[in-house]
Amino acid sequence: MSNFLKSIEGEDQGLKADLDKALVSLKYNQDGLIPAIAQQHDTGEVLMMAWMNEAAIRETLETGHVCYWSRSRNQYWRKGESSGNQQILVSLNVDCDGDTLLVKVDQTGAACHTGRRDCFYNEITKDGLSIIKDPIQDPNSLYK
Amino acid sequence: MSNFLKSIEGEDQGLKADLDKALVSLKYNQDGLIPAIAQQHDTGEVLMMAWMNEAAIRETLETGHVCYWSRSRNQYWRKGESSGNQQILVSLNVDCDGDTLLVKVDQTGAACHTGRRDCFYNEITKDGLSIIKDPIQDPNSLYK
Repeated sequence: MSNFLKSIEGEDQGLKADLDKALVSLKYNQDGLIPAIAQQHDTGEVLMMAWMNEAAIRETLETGHVCYWSRSRNQYWRKGESSGNQQILVSLNVDCDGDTLLVKVDQTGAACHTGRRDCFYNEITKDGLSIIKDPIQDPNSLYK
Repeated sequence: MSNFLKSIEGEDQGLKADLDKALVSLKYNQDGLIPAIAQQHDTGEVLMMAWMNEAAIRETLETGHVCYWSRSRNQYWRKGESSGNQQILVSLNVDCDGDTLLVKVDQTGAACHTGRRDCFYNEITKDGLSIIKDPIQDPNSLYK
C-alpha cells in the first residue's frame, strides 16, 4: 500500500495534498500503468476499464479529455480520437491503497469497440454466459 | 483478446455459452487473477476493485456471496467474513476482451477497510488531492 495514502486514510474530508505528492503515491505496475475504471457520471454505468500512466493522468487532468495508455498499441489512447466517442472528464479519484483509479466521465455514444454503450455486455451466471446488450452504434462506422 | 469472446462480439443479445467455456476464455494475469470491479447494484456506486481467480469466481456464482483472492494475504477473501460487511452477488459480467469483471452487489455497510462506504474517497484534480468522503463506520469496529 502507498505509504502516503496509508498515512492519510484516517483524516477527515477536506484534507489536501499537492499533485506531485499524489501522483508519486500511486501504485503503478511493472509497466508503469494503473487501471482506470470509467463510469458515466450521471447514470452510474460502468463503461470500461483501461490503463493510464502518470503522463496520461496529467494530460487527462490538464485537458479535461480522458487519455489512456493502450497496452495493445503501445501508445497514448485519446479516447474518441478515431471513433469520435470521446470521454470528457468529470472527476478522477484514487482508491485507499492507490492502485486503482475511478474516472467519472461524460461519454459520447458507445464506449465499447463493438458499438455497445459499455464493455460489460457478457453476463456470467452458474448456468453459463449470455450476451445481454446490443450495439447502439454500428462498429463499422466507428473505425474507418 | 480472448478468441472465444472475440468470436461472439458481433452476436445479438441472447447468445449463450456454457460456464466452462466462459471461464476458460477469461484473460487471467500471470498470477491467475482477473480484476473485479464491485458496484452497488441499485445506487451505481463503484465500491472497490479487487481480484478473483477462477475458483473465486465459481464460488461466488455458486454461493451468491462474493469471494475474492487477497493478494496481500495470499488467500481467499470472503468479503465480510471478519468485518460483517458482506457483498451479496446480484450479477457478474465480463468485458469484451475478457480481462475485467464487473460484479454488481448488495453491500452491507462500508466496503472500504477505512470505514468509508467505498474506497475511492481521494479525488485528484490538477490542483492536487483532496479527501472527499468520511467514514460511515468506525474502522476499529470492523476488524477486531
